[in-house]
Amino acid sequence: MPYNNKFIDIAEQLKPTLIPSTVKPIARGQLAKDSSSLFSWTIVADNAENTASSDFICRNGQVAFDFGRYCVGYLSFELECEGKIDCPLRLQIKFGETIAELGESFDGFEPSLGRAWLQDEVIVIDYPVGEVKLPRRYAFRYVSITSVYNPPSYKFRITNLKCETVTSADETAIPVLSGNIPEQLRDIDRTSLNTLRHCMQTVFEDGPKRDRRLWLGDFRLQALVNYQSFKNYDLCKRCLYLFAGTADERGCIPSCVYEYPQPRSGELFIYDYTALFVPTLLEYAEASKDIDTAVELWPSALRQLEIVLKDVDSNGLFHDKKEWWLFIDWNNGLDKQASEQAIVIYCLKQALKLAELVGDSSRNSWLHTNINLMSKAAMESLFDSARQVFISGESRQISWASQAWMIIAGVVDYSVASEILSRLEGLEGVVQPAGPYLYHYVLEAMFIAGHKEQAIALIKEYWGGMINLGSDTFWEVFDPNDLKLSPYGSYLINSYCHAWSCTPSLFIRQLE
Amino acid sequence: MPYNNKFIDIAEQLKPTLIPSTVKPIARGQLAKDSSSLFSWTIVADNAENTASSDFICRNGQVAFDFGRYCVGYLSFELECEGKIDCPLRLQIKFGETIAELGESFDGFEPSLGRAWLQDEVIVIDYPVGEVKLPRRYAFRYVSITSVYNPPSYKFRITNLKCETVTSADETAIPVLSGNIPEQLRDIDRTSLNTLRHCMQTVFEDGPKRDRRLWLGDFRLQALVNYQSFKNYDLCKRCLYLFAGTADERGCIPSCVYEYPQPRSGELFIYDYTALFVPTLLEYAEASKDIDTAVELWPSALRQLEIVLKDVDSNGLFHDKKEWWLFIDWNNGLDKQASEQAIVIYCLKQALKLAELVGDSSRNSWLHTNINLMSKAAMESLFDSARQVFISGESRQISWASQAWMIIAGVVDYSVASEILSRLEGLEGVVQPAGPYLYHYVLEAMFIAGHKEQAIALIKEYWGGMINLGSDTFWEVFDPNDLKLSPYGSYLINSYCHAWSCTPSLFIRQLE
Repeated sequence: MPYNNKFIDIAEQLKPTLIPSTVKPIARGQLAKDSSSLFSWTIVADNAENTASSDFICRNGQVAFDFGRYCVGYLSFELECEGKIDCPLRLQIKFGETIAELGESFDGFEPSLGRAWLQDEVIVIDYPVGEVKLPRRYAFRYVSITSVYNPPSYKFRITNLKCETVTSADETAIPVLSGNIPEQLRDIDRTSLNTLRHCMQTVFEDGPKRDRRLWLGDFRLQALVNYQSFKNYDLCKRCLYLFAGTADERGCIPSCVYEYPQPRSGELFIYDYTALFVPTLLEYAEASKDIDTAVELWPSALRQLEIVLKDVDSNGLFHDKKEWWLFIDWNNGLDKQASEQAIVIYCLKQALKLAELVGDSSRNSWLHTNINLMSKAAMESLFDSARQVFISGESRQISWASQAWMIIAGVVDYSVASEILSRLEGLEGVVQPAGPYLYHYVLEAMFIAGHKEQAIALIKEYWGGMINLGSDTFWEVFDPNDLKLSPYGSYLINSYCHAWSCTPSLFIRQLE
Repeated sequence: MPYNNKFIDIAEQLKPTLIPSTVKPIARGQLAKDSSSLFSWTIVADNAENTASSDFICRNGQVAFDFGRYCVGYLSFELECEGKIDCPLRLQIKFGETIAELGESFDGFEPSLGRAWLQDEVIVIDYPVGEVKLPRRYAFRYVSITSVYNPPSYKFRITNLKCETVTSADETAIPVLSGNIPEQLRDIDRTSLNTLRHCMQTVFEDGPKRDRRLWLGDFRLQALVNYQSFKNYDLCKRCLYLFAGTADERGCIPSCVYEYPQPRSGELFIYDYTALFVPTLLEYAEASKDIDTAVELWPSALRQLEIVLKDVDSNGLFHDKKEWWLFIDWNNGLDKQASEQAIVIYCLKQALKLAELVGDSSRNSWLHTNINLMSKAAMESLFDSARQVFISGESRQISWASQAWMIIAGVVDYSVASEILSRLEGLEGVVQPAGPYLYHYVLEAMFIAGHKEQAIALIKEYWGGMINLGSDTFWEVFDPNDLKLSPYGSYLINSYCHAWSCTPSLFIRQLE
């Protein structure tokens, strides 16, 4: 791989030292089915005073702990035994972002993603007394510890169960929220930042349970919220350099990057993510005032535009040549042509601002030409003049995605944008957003179009809905009408702390 | 516990440095059912040249390896991947003394002993490239590695699979076997010493898979073979001091001792094992010429006799007060009165020899009195004058155990012993030995009674039977007519390398 080692070195020097803290369980008890609880599982607490310890456990006994809050970190506990220790101890330890992950068996479950994402370990301890530290990092609120047919000769108990959590987010940097913000929005802001905090590790991870890695489109949203809260500019800079440093032989920046064993490309390329490197760099430079980085990475940003424009025809229209992964949203039924068209237009426009910031107007005319051509093509081919909304693909599909991105790209002005959004409500068969990532851009379009009340209502209903279910983090996938919806075959493998869902904070913190 | 720290310190200073060596698999392939193989499982080898590597494995693929010989040690391998490593790797690794342990599922199996004795691990490797070292020690010849629903995005292969074996037995110390010994007995001798070798670790373990600890009765037999082969006197001395150092407040030596986290009593007391400390100490002193140790531990040895004599009545007859575990053999139907009676007589007699060796005749009269009283009681109450064999308990049970121990104890002389053994063949309902531990004492009785041919035939048939099944170690439990016999509910948890089965070597090496 033709990695740019200079860039990677810069990134590696910015690797943060993580901030530790200790979290202990606030309740312990037994797992039980409960149809009134999320995913029908609950922990029936036993009201013990010392919630970081268990009673003595024999044979195939089990205990479940609730840490009371989401944790990302390292679990440890001590073992105490009674009786004759004549055999190693075998334990199954399960970690759940939800209680259901503890309650449901993973046996026979064959997820399309790797089974290894499910957080359960089987450990055998030769001499089961003293401290046990699990070496891997887990993301969870709930833990169950099950004795796997241990002998009757002794029983054991867990004491001093705790999690050493880690994050690169500094809580003390968060500006105080305006006193005018109502309680529900304050809750949503708190949950947003909690979600982001757990995803801020040595990179901005998409989710600390899964995929635990840096995704370009996700990173952009995380960085935007970070600028309003934790203000960890170095972590953003590190991520920008990791992306630019792992570009392929075409100069194309990968859509995801791994840190271990050394920085490496995820070798996945998402058309929309590629283009979004441009606003991501611009926003960093604007927030951090670090113009040097913008100057150094400006050629990389321009290169992404050159690459995505290869799939735009001479009339300025994007065509899916099936060479890219088009993301936009998890909705498989979504036609993505209009959204991609709009994203490229948007990114070309952001490039003009970046050009000004770095003091290089040499490509301005090329940028203007493409903006004009693509905007014209969008109105001619992707706007339904009868229905007065944007359409996508041969099926002339009408979706929230297409309208949102065209509005964000400024293809229509403020007043038309507002009319389009109002008009959508009355139309039948409009393809809805399927997840928080696209919902973010819908919110952004609503604010642009002056639909502030509608946006706030959406925040309260959609993100507030997750809080109402008892979550202190926002989810990767959330459909209030189908809580078990999953792109991966099971809700158990969904990520329940996913940074692309943290953006309500961005809007709430801009309210007066 | 009132441990004798001086003794424990002496033991700890004698802790051996283990001798390492590297063993690699000699074949690899797929597990398959095969009714003609031991326990109906085989590995169908794929004739690969590099048997320490696997082909690429996907999803839920599996590979099985045959190391070609029994190993006790630490497994390591390297992982090589092809594709996009986007998820941790989850593997199940099973270790088998027999292939059946790999083939049979352990799920739902609830052994009366701890499930943790079954040797399978589930490991999750965050970045599945490079070396993987399993931290625990295993005892096995066969290993299977199974991919647990890993993602389709990449496949992996195992390379450089190896076991770093450990032992405190020095092969180079073994005296060359007389050229007159026939091939089958040479095989049995080799297998005996191989069995002992794997059990020689930082103590004489009973079995390296299970229980991995020092048992007094087992140790006596191991030490006897060790004096004829590896001649590791220090390891014997260490074990003697571990026993003597962990005696309880009565001065009673425990029947098993653990090394970790520090030497500690197993808090189990077997009547026959307690008495056998006396000959064990004597035999050590005779073999090693280390009289100082015999002098230092002589009071401990005498104390064991004082303790066991508490269960002998004023007429010199042993009665089971149900305060002890009586072992003798695994056979639950065996009445143990006569055997225990004989063992105490034997140990009292050995104490006289030990008294002479350490130069302390002060208890000789007490020893003689008890020997005479108990021998008389044995002949009066435990010898059936009509049938002319020893009997045991109220049911007047006739067993090999009773005859063997009475012969070893010298309660009858050489010629009567021979007649008794000959007579047994013609009797119905004689309780047979159930396992190799008692078979050893049957062999000893046969040699004492001059039944050398019968003894050699037994060695060839019984121990040779295990070799004929493809084993290069001798088993804890072996019944040629019921190969799956187990005292623990399943043959899978039996130990297939168990030192109390290593004694044919002792007899073979004394043949001319």
